[in-house]
Amino acid sequence: MSLKNEIKNLIDSKTKPIGSLGLLENIAYKICLIQKSKKPSLINPQIIIFAGDHGIAAAGVSKYPQEVTHQMVKNFLNGGAAINVFSQNNSIGLQIVDSGVNYSFDKNKYLINKKIDYGTKSFLTDRAMTNSQLQKCLKSGKEIIQKISSSKSNIVGFGEMGIGNTSSASIIMSYLLNIPLEKCVGSGTGLNKNQLKMKLSILKEAQNFHGEIDDPYEVLEAFGGFEIAQMCSAMIESYKKNMIILVDGFISSSAFLVASKINPNIINNTFFSHKSSEKGHQYLLKKINEDPILDLKMRLGEGTGCALAYPIIENALNFINNMATFENAKVSKESND
Amino acid sequence: MSLKNEIKNLIDSKTKPIGSLGLLENIAYKICLIQKSKKPSLINPQIIIFAGDHGIAAAGVSKYPQEVTHQMVKNFLNGGAAINVFSQNNSIGLQIVDSGVNYSFDKNKYLINKKIDYGTKSFLTDRAMTNSQLQKCLKSGKEIIQKISSSKSNIVGFGEMGIGNTSSASIIMSYLLNIPLEKCVGSGTGLNKNQLKMKLSILKEAQNFHGEIDDPYEVLEAFGGFEIAQMCSAMIESYKKNMIILVDGFISSSAFLVASKINPNIINNTFFSHKSSEKGHQYLLKKINEDPILDLKMRLGEGTGCALAYPIIENALNFINNMATFENAKVSKESND
Repeated sequence: MSLKNEIKNLIDSKTKPIGSLGLLENIAYKICLIQKSKKPSLINPQIIIFAGDHGIAAAGVSKYPQEVTHQMVKNFLNGGAAINVFSQNNSIGLQIVDSGVNYSFDKNKYLINKKIDYGTKSFLTDRAMTNSQLQKCLKSGKEIIQKISSSKSNIVGFGEMGIGNTSSASIIMSYLLNIPLEKCVGSGTGLNKNQLKMKLSILKEAQNFHGEIDDPYEVLEAFGGFEIAQMCSAMIESYKKNMIILVDGFISSSAFLVASKINPNIINNTFFSHKSSEKGHQYLLKKINEDPILDLKMRLGEGTGCALAYPIIENALNFINNMATFENAKVSKESND
Repeated sequence: MSLKNEIKNLIDSKTKPIGSLGLLENIAYKICLIQKSKKPSLINPQIIIFAGDHGIAAAGVSKYPQEVTHQMVKNFLNGGAAINVFSQNNSIGLQIVDSGVNYSFDKNKYLINKKIDYGTKSFLTDRAMTNSQLQKCLKSGKEIIQKISSSKSNIVGFGEMGIGNTSSASIIMSYLLNIPLEKCVGSGTGLNKNQLKMKLSILKEAQNFHGEIDDPYEVLEAFGGFEIAQMCSAMIESYKKNMIILVDGFISSSAFLVASKINPNIINNTFFSHKSSEKGHQYLLKKINEDPILDLKMRLGEGTGCALAYPIIENALNFINNMATFENAKVSKESND
């Protein structure tokens, strides 16, 4: 019998109507396949927040000033942000990467210094990063996962922080899925109607400036940010290490889009934690035909969706590992149709 | 300042864009209001499974034979069912009530004996229970919560087990929401198209037999089951004790429907854990305009939705209790529109 059939039979042998655990059955099945095991496990779960600043922020695409990126990184390091309370509550390790924040941080045991520069250039008038910076991003993203994987972790969630980065995510999505910007742009941290209109017109201007780009690496170079490029490379490396990849919201999904253009197999190890209330994210998930685990109308980033979806994944593995079967619980099976 | 405004200000003072935690903000807000506190807490969470047998099962409305009810109760007591692994994983206490199973169980510390009878009568040809049995259900449901509340628990999830009980739930929903049966009937544990057609025609026959009924108590008497009637009374008592009420899926929601006809205020303390893939449940939630926490395409009952939604509620309280504010984390607030 093939492993696929063995897993399916194992799931159907548990004391519950066939299919009645819905998404949890899909999750358990997929993780069994990833781990090629009927006794799957989650080891040392980690969430990594990639933080970077964006030149485009100066154009007024966000309600928050750029300094909020570094202030929030400090908040992460001090344990005060949403992701801190969620990851602590759900027993998930948390590390923060300085991918390119416009600030010099003191050393901290939770901070991984992979700073490429003090923010990208504005993609309105420049490429966000040079090719050499992109190469550094790809190298450092890989290194981060190599270190985490060597700590035996087999599941990693990808969060981010960066004022202005929904703009990068929108334009990346528009290029890689070949969708008009209108469908990719949302209100981010809470723009009103006029501000949203301005954001869209700024991004259209940027698209005119850059013209056609097909290559996923070039898209990263053109629009950034450092945190998205590092995340993309880290996701590819996580796949190589056969880890379970948890994508967070819109920005994290844009990094996934680039990563999956580079290695389409990465989807086999990936779960989408939640559907963000950011408009572009809903459209993105629909376009790639992926069903997220949660739909809590959140739009915060930081990996908060990963942290909240984690207990569901944990419960899915508990059911396949620990539930009784019809046979050993002596429960009658359903009648045939 | 009113408590409502104080809570709202507290939520908005946390280091996140306003509204960006979506449903978690609503959950935290509602629990603060229930507990009249800006430091809400969850104490000694409990899930109670009410189990009962149904005379209607003999008419062939389920894919499973009636004996599965008592076999599954044994499975609960032995720790082998889905609800066991989920409640254990999420640190929730679990108790099972014999509301009226067609079996005599040995004593067990997790089993609460409130047996009314060895199953209801078939509502095709009789009232499911007598008025005296209904009164016993109401009394015993109340007693169960009084005991749990005296153990300081302030949050309780309502699960159930009973072959045939989606039939009772469908017909209760049809009466209390004044909706044609077609919209209330689904495939339960997994009926095929023809079996579903037969289930619908059986339930229509029952409706013809019983004619018009408005009174919620009479609806319980007519269609049962013992577990639904006890759950209904237990929910009303939970509200009186100002506990947080977690409704599970379709059957649990039908008990809520009856309870809320008796005391409409109960909604103030109630969360709907998940949207079941049982058709009637989706329509029910829409009709009463309630947004469930999870949508995992499950249809298992047992309180499994409550157990999986619990960590989300826990995280919601963690955010309001433990996240830093803009002020104490020294993070810049958003610009005015």
